[in-house]
Parts: sequence; C-alpha cells; structure tokens
Amino acid sequence: MSSSAHGPDRWEKLSEAKVASTRIFDLTGAIYRHPRRKSEREFSLIRSRDWVNIVALTPDNKIVLVNQFRFGLDDFSLEIPGGIIDEHESPLHAGLRELREETGFVGATAQLLGTVSPNPAFQTNRCHFVLVENATASADLAWDEDEEIEVRTVPVEDVLAMARSGVITHSLVVAALFFFEEPWRKMKSQKAPQSV
Amino acid sequence: MSSSAHGPDRWEKLSEAKVASTRIFDLTGAIYRHPRRKSEREFSLIRSRDWVNIVALTPDNKIVLVNQFRFGLDDFSLEIPGGIIDEHESPLHAGLRELREETGFVGATAQLLGTVSPNPAFQTNRCHFVLVENATASADLAWDEDEEIEVRTVPVEDVLAMARSGVITHSLVVAALFFFEEPWRKMKSQKAPQSV
Repeated sequence: MSSSAHGPDRWEKLSEAKVASTRIFDLTGAIYRHPRRKSEREFSLIRSRDWVNIVALTPDNKIVLVNQFRFGLDDFSLEIPGGIIDEHESPLHAGLRELREETGFVGATAQLLGTVSPNPAFQTNRCHFVLVENATASADLAWDEDEEIEVRTVPVEDVLAMARSGVITHSLVVAALFFFEEPWRKMKSQKAPQSV
Repeated sequence: MSSSAHGPDRWEKLSEAKVASTRIFDLTGAIYRHPRRKSEREFSLIRSRDWVNIVALTPDNKIVLVNQFRFGLDDFSLEIPGGIIDEHESPLHAGLRELREETGFVGATAQLLGTVSPNPAFQTNRCHFVLVENATASADLAWDEDEEIEVRTVPVEDVLAMARSGVITHSLVVAALFFFEEPWRKMKSQKAPQSV
C-alpha cells in the first residue's frame, strides 16, 4: 500500500556550508529545494568519516568488549571496539587496526558483517561492522589521546543477553549484534556441543 | 581480563556551553577534567530530546514501514516510523502518537522493546523502541513540515531480510529489529503455522 499516488519527492541539494568544526565531525547547513513546491529549506547535517565496529571472536567463543567513559552519555559504556576509518583505508583493514590498537587483540582475517547509516536523517556517514575470528591478545596497545579502556572478553551468549537487557546500550553495538547473530547460529551448529 | 589495574577513570564535567542550535539538536562544547591527570579537555556533544522508533505489527503479521527522503543520506531511506518524544511524554505514548501521525496506523496498546543510546560518544539522548501490535490503518495523517512519507506494510521475515541485506540501512531500525526478533520468535511459535 502507498499513502500517495506519486510517492515522496527527491529534494535537490543547492549548497552546503560549514557551521562548526569539531575533532570528530563538522556541523554543516545544507540548502535543499523541493522539486514541486520549489520551496528552499536549510537542513543541519553532521558530516564525519565512516566508522568501523568490530565483533572480535576469541578461539573460546568470547567477544572482545571495551569499557570506557563516554562523554555523550556522561558515564561508562560497554561496547565492542570501534573507531574512525582513515582516508583510503578499507573497512576490513580499519577493523583489524582499531581492534589491535584499542585492545591488543590480533586476528588474521576480517569479513564484513554489514553496513548501516548511523542516522540518515542528519548524519552523512556509514558504519561498517567487521567480524574477526580467532582473535588473540598479542599486540601492544596504542590508545588515541583521551582513550583509557578496560578490555574484557565475554561469552557470546552473555553479550547477546547484555544487549537485550540494557547493559550494553550503544545502538551501533546492538546493530552489529543483529548482523552477527545469524552467522553465529551457523557457527554454533558447526562446532562441537561442548565447545559452545 | 582487564588491561589495567585500576580501570578507566570517570571524567568530571566542569561546564557545557552551546556552540550552535539547529531545529533538532544543539551542538555544545563540554569541558571535562581527568581526575588523575588533572588535564582539561573540551568534548563536542550533540544534545537532543529522546527519540522513539516503533515496530508496528498488523493483524496479518506485517511491519509498517515508511520511505522518505533523508538529508543526511541525501537519498531515500526505508525505515520504521519514529520521531521525537515531546516534553513530559512517555515513550509509549510518543510511539502511538508518531505511528498515527506519520502513517495513519493506530494500535490499542504499546510495549517497550528496549532502549539504546544512539551514540554515547557524543550524543546525549536515548532512543526507545516500542512494539505496537494489531496496528490498523484508521487515522488521518498529520505530517510535520517537510515530511512526505510513503507508507508500506511488509511481512516480518521480509523486513528482517531487508535489514540483513542492506536494503534497510538506518542503524536504529536495525537495532530495533534486534530487540524485536526474540518476541517475534515467541509470537510465531504461538500462532498457527498457516498464519505466519
């Protein structure tokens, strides 16, 4: 069913100008014109680089979590590792790099679980979710300035339960777990019962 | 395992000042002090009201979706209905209201599926996910200014597949589906096989 005969129109972007710049994003104002109404409106956008979040699975089926103080929440937040993708860097390379720098865990291979728009209403960037299997703690930490991170490994089923019960609250972590659940069910069914 | 003996410290917030104001959020600069290093740093925050996103299930097990032009993405985005919670409004009331205003679908009851932080790193608000069962198209639309929405109803399993395959890309919609999947599996097992 559709609510109108023609459907919503594609607005035309006329211009975009920077309003403010921060360390991790720019606030811009974009002028758009509606194609039929011809009206012009300004919409505020948060423009930032693409992000990567990593589901790192240890050989004993635990997920690598990081606990850190988060300024938006003004509190600690338990999350999967993640960060900003460098220019010309692939999501898979960025995933392995951020995992190593933030947690010291190293994995040989990475695969893409899925990609989302953090918020298509006003954020311009994408966030990629990367699965790293057989991750082991073997590298030195390389935290960014202001990073101070507690690293934990938690059994997969416990992590899923922590997301469902509100212990893990970051929406991008929850979204990553949505993508991880289906391959995880397949992995579980291929492993010996005593190992899951 | 833990990466340090004492764990990460809780930063102390000294002040916060508005940098820019937009229709849907304020950009602020918050000065925080690290309790041990005594260093002060400014962190940029996006301060906005809490949001609600609604999983509205029709009597024939379809989810109500909205397709609209999104300025952050500069493209159309297929999502579940959602919006901003009014002051003093409960998430459940806001969910029923936004569903009715955006899609014309009305449900008798609403229940909370889960709550997330859209981005604890720099966003201060929460997003609540609300389940509305037995939703039927029975109210007039009441779109906000600039809203122009195509309403569709899509079978639940197709919606889940659309999220997994990247047709639905909004991270908050994907997170809502994470919370919805477990009650959905229980609902399915309680319904007659031919009705799912």
